[in-house]
Amino acid sequence: MDAVQRAGNGHPGTAMSLAPVAYLLFQKMLRQDPADPDWAGRDRFVLSCGHSSLTLYIQLYLAGYGLELDDLKALRKWGSKTPGHPEHGHTAGVEMTTGPLGQGLSSAVGMAMAARRERGLFDPDAAPGTSPFDHHVYVLASDGDIEEGVTSEASAIAGVQELGNLVVIYDQNHISIEDDTAIALGEDTAQRYESYGWHVQTIDWTNGGEGEYTEDVAGLHAAIEAAKAETSKPSIIVLRTIIAYPAPNLQNTGKSHGSALGDSEVKATKELLGFDPEADFAVADDVIAHTRGLRERAKADHAAWQQEFDAWRAGAGERAELFDRIRTRTLPAGWEQALPVFEAGTSIASRKASGEVLNALASTLPELWGGSADLAESNLTSMKGEPSFLPESRTTKTWEGNLYGRTLHFGIREHAMGAILNGIALHGGTRPYGGTFLVFSDYMRPAVRLAAIMKLPVTYVWTHDSIGLGEDGPTHQPIEHLAALRAIPGLDVVRPGDANETAWAWRTILGHTDRPAGLALSRQNLPTFDRSQDGWGDASGVAKGAYTLVESSAATPQVILIGTGSEVQIAVAAREKLEAEGVPTRVVSMPCREWFFEQDQAYRDTVLLPQVKARVSVEAALAFGWEGIVGDAGRSVSIEHFGASADYQDLYREFGLTDTAVVTAAKESLAGLQ
Amino acid sequence: MDAVQRAGNGHPGTAMSLAPVAYLLFQKMLRQDPADPDWAGRDRFVLSCGHSSLTLYIQLYLAGYGLELDDLKALRKWGSKTPGHPEHGHTAGVEMTTGPLGQGLSSAVGMAMAARRERGLFDPDAAPGTSPFDHHVYVLASDGDIEEGVTSEASAIAGVQELGNLVVIYDQNHISIEDDTAIALGEDTAQRYESYGWHVQTIDWTNGGEGEYTEDVAGLHAAIEAAKAETSKPSIIVLRTIIAYPAPNLQNTGKSHGSALGDSEVKATKELLGFDPEADFAVADDVIAHTRGLRERAKADHAAWQQEFDAWRAGAGERAELFDRIRTRTLPAGWEQALPVFEAGTSIASRKASGEVLNALASTLPELWGGSADLAESNLTSMKGEPSFLPESRTTKTWEGNLYGRTLHFGIREHAMGAILNGIALHGGTRPYGGTFLVFSDYMRPAVRLAAIMKLPVTYVWTHDSIGLGEDGPTHQPIEHLAALRAIPGLDVVRPGDANETAWAWRTILGHTDRPAGLALSRQNLPTFDRSQDGWGDASGVAKGAYTLVESSAATPQVILIGTGSEVQIAVAAREKLEAEGVPTRVVSMPCREWFFEQDQAYRDTVLLPQVKARVSVEAALAFGWEGIVGDAGRSVSIEHFGASADYQDLYREFGLTDTAVVTAAKESLAGLQ
Repeated sequence: MDAVQRAGNGHPGTAMSLAPVAYLLFQKMLRQDPADPDWAGRDRFVLSCGHSSLTLYIQLYLAGYGLELDDLKALRKWGSKTPGHPEHGHTAGVEMTTGPLGQGLSSAVGMAMAARRERGLFDPDAAPGTSPFDHHVYVLASDGDIEEGVTSEASAIAGVQELGNLVVIYDQNHISIEDDTAIALGEDTAQRYESYGWHVQTIDWTNGGEGEYTEDVAGLHAAIEAAKAETSKPSIIVLRTIIAYPAPNLQNTGKSHGSALGDSEVKATKELLGFDPEADFAVADDVIAHTRGLRERAKADHAAWQQEFDAWRAGAGERAELFDRIRTRTLPAGWEQALPVFEAGTSIASRKASGEVLNALASTLPELWGGSADLAESNLTSMKGEPSFLPESRTTKTWEGNLYGRTLHFGIREHAMGAILNGIALHGGTRPYGGTFLVFSDYMRPAVRLAAIMKLPVTYVWTHDSIGLGEDGPTHQPIEHLAALRAIPGLDVVRPGDANETAWAWRTILGHTDRPAGLALSRQNLPTFDRSQDGWGDASGVAKGAYTLVESSAATPQVILIGTGSEVQIAVAAREKLEAEGVPTRVVSMPCREWFFEQDQAYRDTVLLPQVKARVSVEAALAFGWEGIVGDAGRSVSIEHFGASADYQDLYREFGLTDTAVVTAAKESLAGLQ
Repeated sequence: MDAVQRAGNGHPGTAMSLAPVAYLLFQKMLRQDPADPDWAGRDRFVLSCGHSSLTLYIQLYLAGYGLELDDLKALRKWGSKTPGHPEHGHTAGVEMTTGPLGQGLSSAVGMAMAARRERGLFDPDAAPGTSPFDHHVYVLASDGDIEEGVTSEASAIAGVQELGNLVVIYDQNHISIEDDTAIALGEDTAQRYESYGWHVQTIDWTNGGEGEYTEDVAGLHAAIEAAKAETSKPSIIVLRTIIAYPAPNLQNTGKSHGSALGDSEVKATKELLGFDPEADFAVADDVIAHTRGLRERAKADHAAWQQEFDAWRAGAGERAELFDRIRTRTLPAGWEQALPVFEAGTSIASRKASGEVLNALASTLPELWGGSADLAESNLTSMKGEPSFLPESRTTKTWEGNLYGRTLHFGIREHAMGAILNGIALHGGTRPYGGTFLVFSDYMRPAVRLAAIMKLPVTYVWTHDSIGLGEDGPTHQPIEHLAALRAIPGLDVVRPGDANETAWAWRTILGHTDRPAGLALSRQNLPTFDRSQDGWGDASGVAKGAYTLVESSAATPQVILIGTGSEVQIAVAAREKLEAEGVPTRVVSMPCREWFFEQDQAYRDTVLLPQVKARVSVEAALAFGWEGIVGDAGRSVSIEHFGASADYQDLYREFGLTDTAVVTAAKESLAGLQ
């Protein structure tokens, strides 16, 4: 209350009523070590209701994770360790950046899945519950998390996956910003989670709304133990609470959700609890001494685990090396030798080349795993012969289920896929990927943004990346998505121009461990360029984001054509026409502008020669965002409206995405300079 | 089958197995008139599984909506009336563009809500079921629709709203593109919908998977009647089918979902059904004569309704005028007089100005209604004194429920909000709006895109539109969202610079009926400019997208500063400094670039003088997309990374969004020209 009061704004209510719950978790339940927040054996705790960041900060303070009273006093202030919402990588002990509702619970499903996959990689034969890799994922979720559709998707997946290591406590306080949730939340949430196949318990601290409010912590403790005892189902405990309890006037109000309580209410609450109403941020020495005692208890837990772990390591052989390698996200020496090289002169869709890359890497990089939101055959995201990550009982004619399997099936749930990929990357060192059509990146955008904020090395396999997908029409044809995704800070958007660029795209992406990347891949076949010809650049140029694919016939070109993905071939064809007409023309392939802008100015100037102002970009998408690259004198051959349903060749012709159009634009650009 | 075969690709399976269901609906259940697809009294039918477009096209053909066999033969071809997914406004009888899964069912919830609101506007006192405005909304949904989270959100809302006029038939065929859905779909869907408070029936044509498959159309008919009889709950009929039935080999396979069956399978199926295996697109004359008989039956239905309607009109008085006005989306004469004018020299957040606009328009424009995804007090989207659109039993201390109410409560479900707004706009002529934080436009993006594709006049009230929201930190601060939304073709993104611009923004938006618009509004207070000063432009310039807010001291400025929203004041402050230093400087306010680019070149050249190359944009967001406006010599004062949690004034200072930075950028831009 004091912290929110000092900040002037924030969310005090939930932090108050959930204090006993969080205290129970941190002081009694979680396997953790405040001295080693990255301990591989720790349980994970996700505060899905990130707006109640104090709930977490106070426990991190009490447990001794490094936060002190001064940090709590600096809540929501510039440079503090206690920002408005918990930020992973910023504050020790924060497992995930939360705040956008639904993301925490959904990513926790991914964490629980990763725990099983990692166990399968490192210690598959241990009896249940006996491996140092066995632990739990706990979540505190709010009414808002329950309302967001992404948790519906992720919870359905958790049920299918029988995630016995996942325990969700749903703080059902029936209050959100618009006050009583009756206006929008009428479902029987317990029944809904039963329908997903979860283990469901309900606890009502309000005693049916009648009589006295009872913070029955012992009952909650027993419920959590029961949840842990159920190892073949995820568990949810629906905990009915009163927000801002015990504030005498503002408990059970929307105002207490998202606003400071005010001096008088804070004082009244302190009086009610027997504290000095005039003392701010007062924590008795014996209290903090007691709670910090956790560090000693944790040390003992950690030591016991270390013994188990050392015993495992002694017998683990190559798996121990794998563990060390994956934990640090180090790629094995020479891994890139496994990458395929595609023969020039053939024709292959970049999605297909991507599928071949994944298959080629399967045995070399066991940390690489993923799947699709029900488009496996379209996204080509499966590795042949690898079982699906599924309980065996879910084996179908097409897919073999294995608890430790590698192929992920998200169903038609792109948003949960995004959130689950985040959870997998947060949990450990594996490298998850997930596929859908590029147009449906919109469905998963909130999770992609969080991956970028958290700098998670998640890879999106977005295929069918333009009107080139043809007949499915405007609802399925991305027009604005490349621009919209390039706009996300910290996300690499990679659109390779042929099969060998696709291999180099994967190679470069996997070399990064500090950011997500999205591959934009074609449905239609693309020619594999013959780079042995004079003046052609090597596909390794992909790693620099853009490079000269075909040099002009003159030392200095008159025009530079810049293409990406399936339109690089159009630039190449246009170059031939321009050269035939006596216009020395360079073709630049620019698969990833983020990588290009990371290069020094000197390199960039060798690709986009500053003195050559006649430039044309060609991309089957908006020109939006290209103006800065082609400049005032440049032109963009683009598509500025939604697509249509037809054969893709018809669409390219009708929408003017042709070599002829590029030639015309180049001439206009040249003419404008005169 | 023939159509998909000829197209070479498509989704034949569902169209085959759902044929009897669609036939039942179109030939026996729907109140419709193929001769008047926009008849106000019609039932609505939404094919949520848009990939099965043939299901709809075949019925439109049989019923006589204007499609003929040649149209079916042109399935998925350039220029045809039968694109890959149904397109509203393109093919008569298509109520909604579908294809992105989940959207159809979710928007149908909006249609059902709109039906109730419109009845409340036009005929509130009629006994249930007796009004010409009473009708039903039918949906065909697939496994994919059920998996997408947006339908979970919308279905929960439908339960809260007790939408007895909504009937969903869920085609549970257990097959999606990755074949058997057991790999991803394990829930008890019937139980889940019970938890939302729906009326649930299940029908199993597979007879438990044992014995013969029975297309028990009579049973389905009875279930639909039972669904209609339940008027206080939305209904779902879980219909277990076998996809691609009766194809002898490919029924019940993922292949039949999304690929042509192949010649031999098509022939075998025809043989099985007793048709000539060699005849393509063969429809017996008596069959089509029978089905087209619907037109006569429809004429009678329509005439009967017209009598009811005429009787209503005769007694409706002003409500009849309102009906005519709203149905054509005509604004009342002089409506703009109701708009507030804000006093210069005061200070008010643009979100607050927007709230005042809505309140000022409340009595003048009853067609205007909307709400928020649990941020009413933040988005300021409620009209004072107007009841909530809710069953009375859901009245809370804060909100009064009324079945015909005006304020919408979506809960924390931005995606369903977007889809529901689409459904409302599709259903009739009311003008819906919905609010959330700008950053959470990501959650609703797929629905926003569909609004743009369908050209629906939906308005988004996106507040807290920059780091100016302060302490909530990077998860809540939009950086890339203005760019990402501007990228959507057909969406107007409007970011007014003060209170009077906000009023003009609403005025201009409401004048458009053919497109969605998003308002980006500040959390923080903004000065209301004193436009009576010499050289200042009128706020009416907003309607042109950009205008000269403050003229330079010289006839031709040396520098043009371009600001939007809360950064216009920074441009104004920078201009004063530059002028003081002897640099004649113009300030352009550019609230909506879409409106600006609609103006003719002559107007645009009067605002952005072509000869003035020294330009600086200032916007608390990415520079991405500004390059084309400021040009090669220009600069952008922007923010290129995620934000932080702190007081907003600290953030503007620390991130360099200041008048000083604009002055420096202007000097750099000028220097670069020399």
